[in-house]
Amino acid sequence: MHVIKTIDDIKRIRKQLAEPVGFVPTMGYLHEGHISLVKRARNENKSVIASIFVNPTQFGQGEDLESYPRDLQRDLALLEKENTDVVFIPEPATMYPRSFNTWVQVDDITQRLEGTSRPTHFRGVTTVVAKLFNIVEPSRAYFGQKDAQQATVIRKMVDDLNMNLEIVVAPTVREPDGLAMSSRNKYLGTEERKSATVLSRSLNLAQQLYSQGERDTSLIRNKMIELIKSEPRAEMDYVSIASLDTLEELDTIEAGALVSLAVKIGKPRLIDNVILG
Amino acid sequence: MHVIKTIDDIKRIRKQLAEPVGFVPTMGYLHEGHISLVKRARNENKSVIASIFVNPTQFGQGEDLESYPRDLQRDLALLEKENTDVVFIPEPATMYPRSFNTWVQVDDITQRLEGTSRPTHFRGVTTVVAKLFNIVEPSRAYFGQKDAQQATVIRKMVDDLNMNLEIVVAPTVREPDGLAMSSRNKYLGTEERKSATVLSRSLNLAQQLYSQGERDTSLIRNKMIELIKSEPRAEMDYVSIASLDTLEELDTIEAGALVSLAVKIGKPRLIDNVILG
Repeated sequence: MHVIKTIDDIKRIRKQLAEPVGFVPTMGYLHEGHISLVKRARNENKSVIASIFVNPTQFGQGEDLESYPRDLQRDLALLEKENTDVVFIPEPATMYPRSFNTWVQVDDITQRLEGTSRPTHFRGVTTVVAKLFNIVEPSRAYFGQKDAQQATVIRKMVDDLNMNLEIVVAPTVREPDGLAMSSRNKYLGTEERKSATVLSRSLNLAQQLYSQGERDTSLIRNKMIELIKSEPRAEMDYVSIASLDTLEELDTIEAGALVSLAVKIGKPRLIDNVILG
Repeated sequence: MHVIKTIDDIKRIRKQLAEPVGFVPTMGYLHEGHISLVKRARNENKSVIASIFVNPTQFGQGEDLESYPRDLQRDLALLEKENTDVVFIPEPATMYPRSFNTWVQVDDITQRLEGTSRPTHFRGVTTVVAKLFNIVEPSRAYFGQKDAQQATVIRKMVDDLNMNLEIVVAPTVREPDGLAMSSRNKYLGTEERKSATVLSRSLNLAQQLYSQGERDTSLIRNKMIELIKSEPRAEMDYVSIASLDTLEELDTIEAGALVSLAVKIGKPRLIDNVILG
């Protein structure tokens, strides 16, 4: 497994890899969700590149950039175990030299949901992902459904800018009690960890109501909010039932609607979602 | 010569071309400046692609999008004569489907010079050029020095986003009396055409003063402004002496400084520049 720090080196090694090349961009502190992406990339491509980069431009003022969990040695061991060919671990100054001043911005859908409380977040995501796509030139790139809005935004960028790769979005991997895997779960104390299942429980409730024939989004949303409010450690940010492509809120549910939510459990703010079906 | 209208077709034909591929993006109504770019691309590459697309997103409100000169048949004949392999002529709805909503934006240098009176112009340029680069995947792309700020902005985008091509900037081609070739010269009436030489005359004056040892930019700028004011049909927009990379105004001239100006001659607004040396 090649572990590469510079852009020149990764571009050179990339040229020697067998096609097609699968790419898994991550911020590290890998969990089973990431590993499921690497396994899928391994399965569908001749070569696999992963990146580990805690991207500063997608963190807002007062967010957890400094304290974001890191464990490079453990991450590299996990990637090696999955037969990853190349791991790209650039420094921030490599990706963002001092004079850096170019941004890739998807409008509208980036200002909804997560964008409401994190207005510059997706500009950071699309900019670093565009850079990584140009550096790695993957045939396919793999993202988790857990970050549903991110997947929608990246698909939109790829379509609008005519980028030459396929975006693959893989199912959310969950703990046995339903909590979606996330590097930020590390922040949860023991009691908070128990409360955190309120996210998946309210999504299950939405799916259950939908399966029973309920199509009124405000009714479903209110029942979800009720459930969240019954959990004393939970502080709701948003509960949304929206079109998966446009992220516009729906009055009446349509097939494949995205139910998503953000909830603070103590200090950490967690997100989760389900596509109704 | 293949004349292609759809993105799928150009991507498919692109794959069959011999490497390296030179690319000349244009807005059509070709003049000798464009042709010099095609000749250079022909000379330096195995294959040559040109595009003709009057890009709506780089025109501001009240600018000349509707009246921008067009002559496709003449353009195609000129490109064929230069042994262009492929010409890409997309419709606006092909490049910008209704849901289009992604922008590539270089900050700071795009708000100077042309950006002062055309605040959204370069966002349109970088967005369409990023799209064309992804569609055409050229080894090299060719731009004219006449649009000096555009060349600086595109180089910055390519560097910042780690795009995989070389940007070549070729010298401005001029009429015998010094007027820089431009599709917008067509707008000039007979008397205006004569007055329009004031742009190149004031650039020549700057070069001459510099060659004589003058290094005080405000003195040079004032002499240029005096000359422009002596031409009754000319209405100055800006005269700038700036760093070629950062476009920051210089107090004292350094080697390779960019002297640029925008002047309205009657209705048309013309630009020109020289790099001191």
